[in-house]
Amino acid sequence: MKGNIIVGQSGGPTAAINSSLAGVFRTAKDRGAKKVYGMMHGVQGLLQERYIDLSDHIKTELDAELLKRTPAAFLGTCRYKLPEIHEDRDVYEKIFGILEKLEIESFIYIGGNDSMDTIKKLSDYAIITGHPCRFVGCPKTIDNDLALTDHTPGYGSAAKYIGTSVKEIIRDSFSLEYDRGLVTIVEIMGRNAGWLTGAAALSKGEDCAGPDMIFLPELPFDLQGFSDRVKKLLKKRKSVVVAVSEGIKIEGGKYVCELGQSSDFVDAFGHKQLSGTAAYLANFIAGETGCKARAIELSTLQRSASHAASRVDILEAYQVGGAAVKAADEGDSGKMVVLTRISDDPYQCGTEVKDVHKIANDEKVVPRDWINKEGTYVTDEFISYVRPLIQGDVSPVMVDGIPRHLYAPTEL
Amino acid sequence: MKGNIIVGQSGGPTAAINSSLAGVFRTAKDRGAKKVYGMMHGVQGLLQERYIDLSDHIKTELDAELLKRTPAAFLGTCRYKLPEIHEDRDVYEKIFGILEKLEIESFIYIGGNDSMDTIKKLSDYAIITGHPCRFVGCPKTIDNDLALTDHTPGYGSAAKYIGTSVKEIIRDSFSLEYDRGLVTIVEIMGRNAGWLTGAAALSKGEDCAGPDMIFLPELPFDLQGFSDRVKKLLKKRKSVVVAVSEGIKIEGGKYVCELGQSSDFVDAFGHKQLSGTAAYLANFIAGETGCKARAIELSTLQRSASHAASRVDILEAYQVGGAAVKAADEGDSGKMVVLTRISDDPYQCGTEVKDVHKIANDEKVVPRDWINKEGTYVTDEFISYVRPLIQGDVSPVMVDGIPRHLYAPTEL
Repeated sequence: MKGNIIVGQSGGPTAAINSSLAGVFRTAKDRGAKKVYGMMHGVQGLLQERYIDLSDHIKTELDAELLKRTPAAFLGTCRYKLPEIHEDRDVYEKIFGILEKLEIESFIYIGGNDSMDTIKKLSDYAIITGHPCRFVGCPKTIDNDLALTDHTPGYGSAAKYIGTSVKEIIRDSFSLEYDRGLVTIVEIMGRNAGWLTGAAALSKGEDCAGPDMIFLPELPFDLQGFSDRVKKLLKKRKSVVVAVSEGIKIEGGKYVCELGQSSDFVDAFGHKQLSGTAAYLANFIAGETGCKARAIELSTLQRSASHAASRVDILEAYQVGGAAVKAADEGDSGKMVVLTRISDDPYQCGTEVKDVHKIANDEKVVPRDWINKEGTYVTDEFISYVRPLIQGDVSPVMVDGIPRHLYAPTEL
Repeated sequence: MKGNIIVGQSGGPTAAINSSLAGVFRTAKDRGAKKVYGMMHGVQGLLQERYIDLSDHIKTELDAELLKRTPAAFLGTCRYKLPEIHEDRDVYEKIFGILEKLEIESFIYIGGNDSMDTIKKLSDYAIITGHPCRFVGCPKTIDNDLALTDHTPGYGSAAKYIGTSVKEIIRDSFSLEYDRGLVTIVEIMGRNAGWLTGAAALSKGEDCAGPDMIFLPELPFDLQGFSDRVKKLLKKRKSVVVAVSEGIKIEGGKYVCELGQSSDFVDAFGHKQLSGTAAYLANFIAGETGCKARAIELSTLQRSASHAASRVDILEAYQVGGAAVKAADEGDSGKMVVLTRISDDPYQCGTEVKDVHKIANDEKVVPRDWINKEGTYVTDEFISYVRPLIQGDVSPVMVDGIPRHLYAPTEL
């Protein structure tokens, strides 16, 4: 590597995305990169010429270790979608002008589906114009919905946090006693893919029965069937705990969270803004059964809980960052690094690069046969898949009782 | 100790209440108790003769260690308030009849204000009737609102979780960028006392600016002043994070969470059921400023996150359990164990026993001079008070990636 490299982060933050950034930085330096730039708030910030020299922020080995333990996007993220090349070439010319000014030979983008769309378009533009800059994507999303990769960095830590928190919620629920029983609905992220919600099953073990039911967005949600099942469960026990995805929909396609609302909101990508699925179901079930019902949203805590991160996840995130730099340095462009599982037990997983055109905008959902017939739980295959990804811990660096992070340039 | 002992848990669960139970069990056994009974779901369960022999559940030293790491009430709790003695002697006769049948010489109750009311009434009844059984309370509440004790077991772990989570939320917030800024409102437990909400300030350090504002329930909340301050902050930065107590009220006494609601709910103790303070404020501030605003409720996670417990807290919880047994065995009754701080730095704290009549139903709130003049933050004195209580960690016993607990009899 003779020139400079630039790296950006995009989409929703995770507990592992900064470990990938540390991997990019370290590998680029090891391979002789002169400068490692970080774009602030992804491509959107780059277009405004907002970038930093990462060496000004990661000065020591300890800084790099802290960065691995720092949740959310150190460089800031964006939800900016590039126009099609034929629609607006000006944006592309502007970006490539900045890359030339900074003498960038490799462009690494850490993100999910929307971010891989950015890699695809920029690498296409480079081919069209004969530009030598290489564009490589580094997978990241707690949603685990990227195609071709066995799983995505960020998912394992979120799954571990969800399994742990749901177990603590189950304990809390059984502590309490109400005459007509208590129903606890836990709302978990994942608009279209149930990977995160299914991770609630990780709470199940010799010491815990796990949640009573798990509803993924892959299947239509039957409100009356749900009520019938809860009533049946309440005859057997005083506490019922149910995990639901924020994105469950009733037959016909209407989101459960919309059932009590009048207006629809969409974000910059045209995705509906979801919230209140658990709140709606808790109200519904209280009305149906007369029981005490409560809603718990795991909210953004599930994507930023680096204090409970998975060691496997943090290490893999670091590896894919390094692998992206290596791929770009060796001439790859328009590619994304993927994780390829070699075996479950003992868990072994390696990295490869794949064509980003086969990945972008293609959401990977939970296979039908990893959900039970009734659609009320994940199968053992699902658990065997996710279990290796939550193994091991990354001890936080505790200072005066609280985990220490690396101060992010976004906060200065 | 020649006879038997019975122990119960009452009120809201915590991450440390089971460590007190472990302390009671171990100390009672060490002092020669024949049987250590656990009442299921407190006095309410005892009245239905629901109890267990704790030796059937805590069989090994490892079981006791797991119990210390198990969140929520192992024995189950209740929110049952005894009638006044002169109103209904039957209830008391029933309880004392059961205690005689079980040959109980000491009755230990782990709980907060309402539970100490139970200790007070039962010990009063024993005095009136000349009954030899001793009644001693063991403090517990994440709310930290008990009088006479420096702090309550359960508070330190909740404070540590809140400081850690708020820091992660701040990181997450600065990752994102919205044209008109992002306001994040974090809702924290504590109906009348701001001890938990103030703990959001623990996120502040060399690596984090902490929340921008903290609003405790001790002072009236000024909606317009809040809006003005947020607008001013949004001129300086893109992300504003505010911690609020669930129990903040506007001048005149109306809860903020009631401003958008029509009906009032009260629990068995006549306390109003609160929720939605952050949701109301997020909607309000979005309307006022046009910014993106979001609400995060830490919910019951803050009282059950044993995976992030404070070592000081778990050890002190164990100690007060032991001290309660010792006090009862030495003849004390109608008393509660309290923690008395000897010094802040180095932190030293011991146990004493105090008359429960001086404690019950008296809520300790944050002193006015531990809140800044504007009512928008806690002072350094507050932080010096809470900082020692969050020190050290209790490593979870990890099995297959998830913390292991002791299976509770409430769940069988």
